[in-house]
Amino acid sequence: MPRCLSLKLSIEREEPFRLANVELLSYRHSYNVRYGLLTRELRFRDRAGRETSLRSRRFVSMTRMHLAAISWELVAENWAGSVEVISALDGRVVNRGVARYQQLWGRHLDPQGPRVHAPDVIALKVRTRQSRIEIAQAARTRAYMGGEELDVARSTYQTEDYIHQVLRFDLDQGSSARVEKLIALYTSRDRAISEPLETAGRSVSRYPSFGDALEHHTQAWLELWEVCDVQLPRDERVQFLLRLHIAHLLQTCSPLTSHHDAGVPARGLNGEAYRGHVFWDELYVYPFLSYRLPGVTRQLLMYRYRRIGEARANAARAGLAGAMYPWQSGSDGEEETQVVHTNPLTGRWERDLSRNQRHVNAAIFYNVWHYYQITHDADFLREYGAEMMLEIARFWSSLAHFNPDRGRWEIHGVIGPDEFHERYPGESAGGLRNNAYTNVIVAWICETAQRVLDLLPAARRALLCSRIGLSDDEIRKWQAMSRKMFVPFHGGVISQFEGYEDLEEFDWDGYRAKHGNIQRLDRLLRAEGDTPDRYKVTKQADSVMLFFLFSPTELGDLFARLGYEYSDDLARRTIDYYDRRTSHGSTLSLVTHAGALARFDPEGSWERFIAALGSDIDDTQDGTTTEGIHLGVMAGTLDVVQRAYLGIEIRDDVLYFNPTVADRLDGLRLSIQVRRTRVIVSLDGSEITVAVPADGNTGPINVGVGVAARELCAGQSVTFKLW
Amino acid sequence: MPRCLSLKLSIEREEPFRLANVELLSYRHSYNVRYGLLTRELRFRDRAGRETSLRSRRFVSMTRMHLAAISWELVAENWAGSVEVISALDGRVVNRGVARYQQLWGRHLDPQGPRVHAPDVIALKVRTRQSRIEIAQAARTRAYMGGEELDVARSTYQTEDYIHQVLRFDLDQGSSARVEKLIALYTSRDRAISEPLETAGRSVSRYPSFGDALEHHTQAWLELWEVCDVQLPRDERVQFLLRLHIAHLLQTCSPLTSHHDAGVPARGLNGEAYRGHVFWDELYVYPFLSYRLPGVTRQLLMYRYRRIGEARANAARAGLAGAMYPWQSGSDGEEETQVVHTNPLTGRWERDLSRNQRHVNAAIFYNVWHYYQITHDADFLREYGAEMMLEIARFWSSLAHFNPDRGRWEIHGVIGPDEFHERYPGESAGGLRNNAYTNVIVAWICETAQRVLDLLPAARRALLCSRIGLSDDEIRKWQAMSRKMFVPFHGGVISQFEGYEDLEEFDWDGYRAKHGNIQRLDRLLRAEGDTPDRYKVTKQADSVMLFFLFSPTELGDLFARLGYEYSDDLARRTIDYYDRRTSHGSTLSLVTHAGALARFDPEGSWERFIAALGSDIDDTQDGTTTEGIHLGVMAGTLDVVQRAYLGIEIRDDVLYFNPTVADRLDGLRLSIQVRRTRVIVSLDGSEITVAVPADGNTGPINVGVGVAARELCAGQSVTFKLW
Repeated sequence: MPRCLSLKLSIEREEPFRLANVELLSYRHSYNVRYGLLTRELRFRDRAGRETSLRSRRFVSMTRMHLAAISWELVAENWAGSVEVISALDGRVVNRGVARYQQLWGRHLDPQGPRVHAPDVIALKVRTRQSRIEIAQAARTRAYMGGEELDVARSTYQTEDYIHQVLRFDLDQGSSARVEKLIALYTSRDRAISEPLETAGRSVSRYPSFGDALEHHTQAWLELWEVCDVQLPRDERVQFLLRLHIAHLLQTCSPLTSHHDAGVPARGLNGEAYRGHVFWDELYVYPFLSYRLPGVTRQLLMYRYRRIGEARANAARAGLAGAMYPWQSGSDGEEETQVVHTNPLTGRWERDLSRNQRHVNAAIFYNVWHYYQITHDADFLREYGAEMMLEIARFWSSLAHFNPDRGRWEIHGVIGPDEFHERYPGESAGGLRNNAYTNVIVAWICETAQRVLDLLPAARRALLCSRIGLSDDEIRKWQAMSRKMFVPFHGGVISQFEGYEDLEEFDWDGYRAKHGNIQRLDRLLRAEGDTPDRYKVTKQADSVMLFFLFSPTELGDLFARLGYEYSDDLARRTIDYYDRRTSHGSTLSLVTHAGALARFDPEGSWERFIAALGSDIDDTQDGTTTEGIHLGVMAGTLDVVQRAYLGIEIRDDVLYFNPTVADRLDGLRLSIQVRRTRVIVSLDGSEITVAVPADGNTGPINVGVGVAARELCAGQSVTFKLW
Repeated sequence: MPRCLSLKLSIEREEPFRLANVELLSYRHSYNVRYGLLTRELRFRDRAGRETSLRSRRFVSMTRMHLAAISWELVAENWAGSVEVISALDGRVVNRGVARYQQLWGRHLDPQGPRVHAPDVIALKVRTRQSRIEIAQAARTRAYMGGEELDVARSTYQTEDYIHQVLRFDLDQGSSARVEKLIALYTSRDRAISEPLETAGRSVSRYPSFGDALEHHTQAWLELWEVCDVQLPRDERVQFLLRLHIAHLLQTCSPLTSHHDAGVPARGLNGEAYRGHVFWDELYVYPFLSYRLPGVTRQLLMYRYRRIGEARANAARAGLAGAMYPWQSGSDGEEETQVVHTNPLTGRWERDLSRNQRHVNAAIFYNVWHYYQITHDADFLREYGAEMMLEIARFWSSLAHFNPDRGRWEIHGVIGPDEFHERYPGESAGGLRNNAYTNVIVAWICETAQRVLDLLPAARRALLCSRIGLSDDEIRKWQAMSRKMFVPFHGGVISQFEGYEDLEEFDWDGYRAKHGNIQRLDRLLRAEGDTPDRYKVTKQADSVMLFFLFSPTELGDLFARLGYEYSDDLARRTIDYYDRRTSHGSTLSLVTHAGALARFDPEGSWERFIAALGSDIDDTQDGTTTEGIHLGVMAGTLDVVQRAYLGIEIRDDVLYFNPTVADRLDGLRLSIQVRRTRVIVSLDGSEITVAVPADGNTGPINVGVGVAARELCAGQSVTFKLW
């Protein structure tokens, strides 16, 4: 969108101030994590020797969807004279945030013209080139001195894609002025408007002062923190990073943004990497949201429901039934995954088979089911959720085939989350045989889809089966698959896919010694004419995902139904096996390993948790953070705390807690919401206390630790002894 | 929007068939209320003596939001030859449905161009003139014979705002063909699209056959009927009309339409009268919806929430606090009420003061509260509902002033629902003093707004009070007003407004003898140079609304808090007093009187209920039904059945039934949903049975009749003896 949250300063009509053309006497740039407020405080001396102090604060409102604001406080420290503040709306923006996209066209906005809406209000409209969405901004700029609005001289300059207003006033030596610029942003997709430019202009005229808007904004954040804060006070850095992640998560997914139909983009709403596309990161994002802001999850799940038509067409094109959601999803839900990509190490274009990551469909199914488990939102399940789940189950069952030699169902031609293995070495076709993660989760999907059918009222079940053409034969096939999916094993561990054991072992130490950071081993190998397909190397958790997504009880049931042995030992061996062969080339992998290891190796888990926590703040992937945050990892660290460390699980209508890494959790305090009832959990020493607040309309809830469980009503609490 | 759901037929390249240029041998036009399917069956002889049978069926899908379809079955009864079927998308539509609007500009669409999307798909895009919303339609037309698609010759004709495709094929004597036209409709406001024209074309290509689409459509209706049907089998006509009303209500307000941000327009989504504006009809619509499809109410209430900014500006312009929603609301929520209107009897322009009907704000407050009572949707109350309720309470309290002589709070300058009284006779300023309906409901609002504050979590309460600037002083004023609003009385009845008793009695019998239908007495009187302001005449229920909206228990509490006597006698006398002085110039009035009379005069109530039921089917208002249905009345008759006749009331967390007009209700059966629990109610002879189905996730619910109450869990039922 056009650039709007900035101001420029010119003293005595000279060249506007930039950091480069002054002598900086002091400078402080800070981001307030609690309130989403960016502050710059600086003092500079210009070429004429004038010293000026400037404090700039800006925010995008958490309480008014269309409002953003910037305020400047200026002090003429040792001079007097005329000041010009330039307040612009600039539609000439170009996407340049990702170095390797420089060859791509970066201008996405067509000008639709500027307008002066009122003496103190300018406005600008642009239109996105492909989707033809109109974006209108209006800016109201006012100057104040000592609490009184200044009667400033104003002049305007405009071109077709730019407009600015100059506010001119005089400053005495030592005196200060304040300039406030309030922004209203509307698009042609917004509801309750006549036309976006007109509405933006009218709205901004009515906005409160910067101070009032900021106060409302901070109060909205306070309210969010009351619901979303995770207190883990034993380690100050951990505490800070958890809150940093909560803040970034809420900037992308909040009650104010969730209806915008942008889904959960991997790099947040403004990161340019991956071109705003939506992958599977929501799998890591919803567990935190659904337990706190279930309405946000619901709205975001609608991003998928609205695109079920494209997903069906996508499946049909591939000769399959049901809905096949794309690996990369954009505005209309078509497959947006690139078919080639550049290796930045060589500049060469390489074939890209990553669209075979059909497991995104398993993630969507899982997300809907877990949202329902946490909320019991039968309305959503009936109207939207069930259709997605059933169509995804159909997709998987149409992709599977029965292998009579094994007497089991198999899935070929897909890849798991591990993108290092796109095909078998030497084979041209993409995809692998029997990815274990996929096959196990498909068995679970086939079982769960039947439960979904049972949960539907009879008329909706009939309607859905008719509309999507679901037959009894297919349901019987689900029954069979839920009992007879094939899972590959070798040497006492789950094989990532059939044939994994035949791959070569990789010289990790040698390669690390040679290259340092080898997270993106694939690029290094390909630059050398080799391929990761040949080796027992994994970019990110694949089979290990199972131990992150499912509790031991669930996995035990799942494997038992499939007729496979399952034990803690199998889990421990499998996690350990891949842990030693994973580059963690996606930091999501660290989240998964932290979660999976929590029960078996608390120290190892914590180590990976700490690494995941640091991935954006320390930019551990060599510069990718400037291209946009890694939302899945940020949210995933929060989920590790609640699901792996606190051990939250809903089973048989009881909310269980099963803490691990317990010595790290002393002082933990968080609140969650289950089926409309709010629950506050705190862990002190060897005791865990669960309380239901007295306020609000809440039903009773069953909570338990181990085998002990009891019912809590509003205003009650219970303390369990842990060890 | 462009005309799309029609086809034209030309035989042997002659002039296309119209009813006017053939001899009609048989004709049947029917609307299937259960499935929303329009059928025309006809047989005609053209000038060349050819006899042709034609069966046309069309529907707008209840399962796919963007789909509509028409099918033709053609039989060449006594001829053979070539046939052309013309399938058009016509953007040249003009609004001409309301005779008295003929002088207004009727073209609202600007052409954006046609397109041939595929050999069998044409498409057209237009843009609305003021709101600049793009509307795109695509049509896929195919011909079939004996189940096989015909390989027809196709040709296309197009202008900038029109496109058609001609399908040419041959028909043997006695043989039949079928033509199917599927339509996809998208607008630039839709989610999950790239661009509406492209998406419409792509979607229509993927649509199922007419037969399959119709089957899905009918199944969606079956599901809706399972939730929404009201069985009242004793009177066949009553049963039919209740179902007709349910069908029309669901055509306007359904899970497929409720997110369209069109609110609840008084004349449905396609009635042209009142130019699509939104009044207060939702007060009559939500009770039925909230008990059955609460998600639809929630979405529709968002129409108001999204416009709270305009309502605040509207209040501020009037020098008032809070939010003043407009009497007539459109796209952006500004006041759209006309300031003059034509009297069709004289053709003269008359001053229109109807915007002083501020009671629409009371209706919105009431609607949010009742939605919350039925659903316990704390999420909605917290995020949206409370803000609307508090801002409306502020509006009313800023409008009220304290009269020290009376020691009570008064409201001047507004009018009640009765539009016959816009001002005092001889006075120029609009509005009246102390409209009783307004003052009583404001007392209730002031009491209820405090309860809303208590229901909010502390952080949200703080945020809201800060954002809207609500002070403790105002809350104290609410407390005072809830105890000391002034209510005028005269002669043992509630006065419609202060001074009503001083007006002249009206010669009803004489005027009826002179004019026949005198529902619109105002127009008749003004045409004679007189004004209804002078007389004790009421267009529609005003004070009587109180006995419709509140139960005797609630009214008793309300009056007791105000320090006024309240008794059944007061209610009976007041209803009777106005019943004899009301022209029922809005048929909503019949609904209100039917509801208010139910306890006191079952026969009189039933009589008005029957009159309300017939108002659209019999077009009792002389032709207004062709301008659009009266949605409020249709839904209101359904609410009379549930709230007045079955006596549904939620009080102290118990769902009570208190049947009246009981001998009419034998065999009544309906289902409602309260706080996520579905309840099936049936009345047989002198017994009422309440059952909670076993399927679905439902909590226990307390139900009662009289003083008897008990808890029902899923799968349980209870029968109460009524008399």
